[in-house]
Amino acid sequence: MKTEIIVIGNELISGKTRDLNGWYASGRLLSNGIEVSEIRTVGDDHKSLSSVLKTAADRSNFIIVTGGLGPTEDDLTTETVSKTFGRPLILYNDILHTIREFTRKAGMKPSASLERLAWLPEGAKILDQKKQMCGFSLIEGKSLLYFLPGVPEQMRELLDRSVIPDIFRIFTPKNLLKKRLIKVYGLREAGIADAFKGLSKEFPGVMFGFYPSFPENHINVTARGNKDASTEKMLNSTEEKIKEILGPYVFASNDMSMETVVGELLKGHRKTISVAESCTGGLIGHRLTSVAGSSVYFERGAIVYSNRSKIEMLGVRQSTLDRYGAVSHQVSREMAEGIRKTSRTDMGLAVTGIAGPSGGEKNKPVGTVFIGLSVDNNIFSSQYLFSGTREKVKIDTSEMALDWVRRYMHGYPFIPGI
Amino acid sequence: MKTEIIVIGNELISGKTRDLNGWYASGRLLSNGIEVSEIRTVGDDHKSLSSVLKTAADRSNFIIVTGGLGPTEDDLTTETVSKTFGRPLILYNDILHTIREFTRKAGMKPSASLERLAWLPEGAKILDQKKQMCGFSLIEGKSLLYFLPGVPEQMRELLDRSVIPDIFRIFTPKNLLKKRLIKVYGLREAGIADAFKGLSKEFPGVMFGFYPSFPENHINVTARGNKDASTEKMLNSTEEKIKEILGPYVFASNDMSMETVVGELLKGHRKTISVAESCTGGLIGHRLTSVAGSSVYFERGAIVYSNRSKIEMLGVRQSTLDRYGAVSHQVSREMAEGIRKTSRTDMGLAVTGIAGPSGGEKNKPVGTVFIGLSVDNNIFSSQYLFSGTREKVKIDTSEMALDWVRRYMHGYPFIPGI
Repeated sequence: MKTEIIVIGNELISGKTRDLNGWYASGRLLSNGIEVSEIRTVGDDHKSLSSVLKTAADRSNFIIVTGGLGPTEDDLTTETVSKTFGRPLILYNDILHTIREFTRKAGMKPSASLERLAWLPEGAKILDQKKQMCGFSLIEGKSLLYFLPGVPEQMRELLDRSVIPDIFRIFTPKNLLKKRLIKVYGLREAGIADAFKGLSKEFPGVMFGFYPSFPENHINVTARGNKDASTEKMLNSTEEKIKEILGPYVFASNDMSMETVVGELLKGHRKTISVAESCTGGLIGHRLTSVAGSSVYFERGAIVYSNRSKIEMLGVRQSTLDRYGAVSHQVSREMAEGIRKTSRTDMGLAVTGIAGPSGGEKNKPVGTVFIGLSVDNNIFSSQYLFSGTREKVKIDTSEMALDWVRRYMHGYPFIPGI
Repeated sequence: MKTEIIVIGNELISGKTRDLNGWYASGRLLSNGIEVSEIRTVGDDHKSLSSVLKTAADRSNFIIVTGGLGPTEDDLTTETVSKTFGRPLILYNDILHTIREFTRKAGMKPSASLERLAWLPEGAKILDQKKQMCGFSLIEGKSLLYFLPGVPEQMRELLDRSVIPDIFRIFTPKNLLKKRLIKVYGLREAGIADAFKGLSKEFPGVMFGFYPSFPENHINVTARGNKDASTEKMLNSTEEKIKEILGPYVFASNDMSMETVVGELLKGHRKTISVAESCTGGLIGHRLTSVAGSSVYFERGAIVYSNRSKIEMLGVRQSTLDRYGAVSHQVSREMAEGIRKTSRTDMGLAVTGIAGPSGGEKNKPVGTVFIGLSVDNNIFSSQYLFSGTREKVKIDTSEMALDWVRRYMHGYPFIPGI
């Protein structure tokens, strides 16, 4: 059984956009036991696409094609399929109906470009039964071809909901492949690699991959087996071992993010939090509130970009600002206390720093950040030096601040500052 | 002249790693006038690689291959090239010398895996004259093949320093290629497509590409010409025409983002701004402060997640909350006024809404958002309905709010709400 992926789009062969669909589809297929032999990326171009489609239909059993299904002039997939395989375009009346309903409800004029989407090659089977998304399958000789939209969300949904179950009707993978992603913050890649020396020997049948995912490091653990339970067990004991080696640096696995983990901890302990942000400009609040249901523990935030706002919103003292500067232990502590007091939450988390690219000084270069946390009867503060662009400094700062909350709730020590 | 790229690595067809090399090489080549027809991604596998190499040598003039040149067992490129093109592996003594020097200086034992790298297919020309990096070129029939390491930094250096100059010795691009990206917010893709009908006829020699880049739509305009000035002129008149067609929906071109555009406008008009965010949770502040130098115009933000914080931080009245609810015209207006008044900025921008996935009501479903803006002697407010996930609603809301500032400063009408 041979499977290949064809990704279509001029933006992908011109350096404009990095492929997301071929990457995602190959991973999802593999984790379902379906190995991909090749990913071919071609432009929005009749001739190339037609030749690639022909070769694929000659040699592969399952072919996943993404892109070129939209309403614009450069969307050529449907037409090329029609010509390449000699299948005339047929009007699908129920799609037309859905499109007309949609334009009517949206108060739009009937659109020729949209109505073009109701024409599909003869024999095409629609993938989305609700007809909200483009996408169809086709049997051509011994090949099953799936045509999916290039919009990543739609592609993913159709792949998971329609394509993979459809393939499983024909093909039963011999081996199950199970993956677990273990997420680490605060260790360098080389440090993790050294800690892992010899671990592959201890766990034969388990594969390890290390991927920096700024500001985190992710460890991909893959196990292969023929039974669900035993592979799962192998993954569990590997994860336990990794936690033993790396300790509190491991903060989550699989889909959990730092903000989700922090949210779960706050909810579990029935604690509330408020934030005071200077250099991050709202990013910590944004991350905390990206978790559904965060209003239970997140009360408010103050984005105190100016000195005046630090004084007026948080009660930071003018004398503290004058004496130590806005980027200092003292101000981070007064900010943390101030936001906790005015919001009457259990925790007040504060950051102040120099995100750059300018604004650095000799003793406080760009990337200097102070984190403050007011909680129980304590006020903690620490100084860090992050590197990279303005955006990177903001992201690293937000991650470290959230990690403080996580570590405090677990009773772990904070990652040491400088 | 046909050019293709071959990217090698199991990690790239198994969903582990997103391709960086094919993407980068295609962009660099195109900006030098060399169009790439296809990117093929295959695993570390003799058979697939050999077949892909053969096809490439049959049809393409320039072939860039990345990956599989290292010292580990899964690095098969050199051997596969040797077998595919019938070129025995030859010992390159000067490479061997460099490797032995390196191991000696590093205090390592002579390494068989490293010394294997001194064997190259007959006829191979070394790309890096310093011999610090793997990589060679080969002439095969009418094709020039370049084999580059998979390590992105090395690949990039060799591509720019050796490969592109080498191609230019043979090939002079007839045409210069110039690109411009035009960014649109507030129009659906189909709407843009309809507006563009016939534009390609009006501007022959100009290519248009349409790319949704949530929540924006991007139009890629590419012009080809033999003189820098004339191509630039063609792009300028195309951009003018697009602006004429789409009007204020066009907000930026090339690298400018919505927040950069808004920042430039505020700076240019010497205006200051403060924000009051409920459902976006800090995202608007984060975006505004992601622009270097934003402290000149961004004074502060209030993330007012709870009702209490709306009252305490912004002076929203309890009676307004009771009567109209937190997600309402009235509250968005009091928020905008409140943040402007307490911060004493020229503008106060506010958003309140239901980001979901829960919290929706019959009259105010998930995605309902009110935007308020207090500026000069006016208070504006409008209701919108955004769709999609919590994250999408937050992003769309932040974009619309920033777009309000842009449109107000230009004297354009806001995008109508519901």
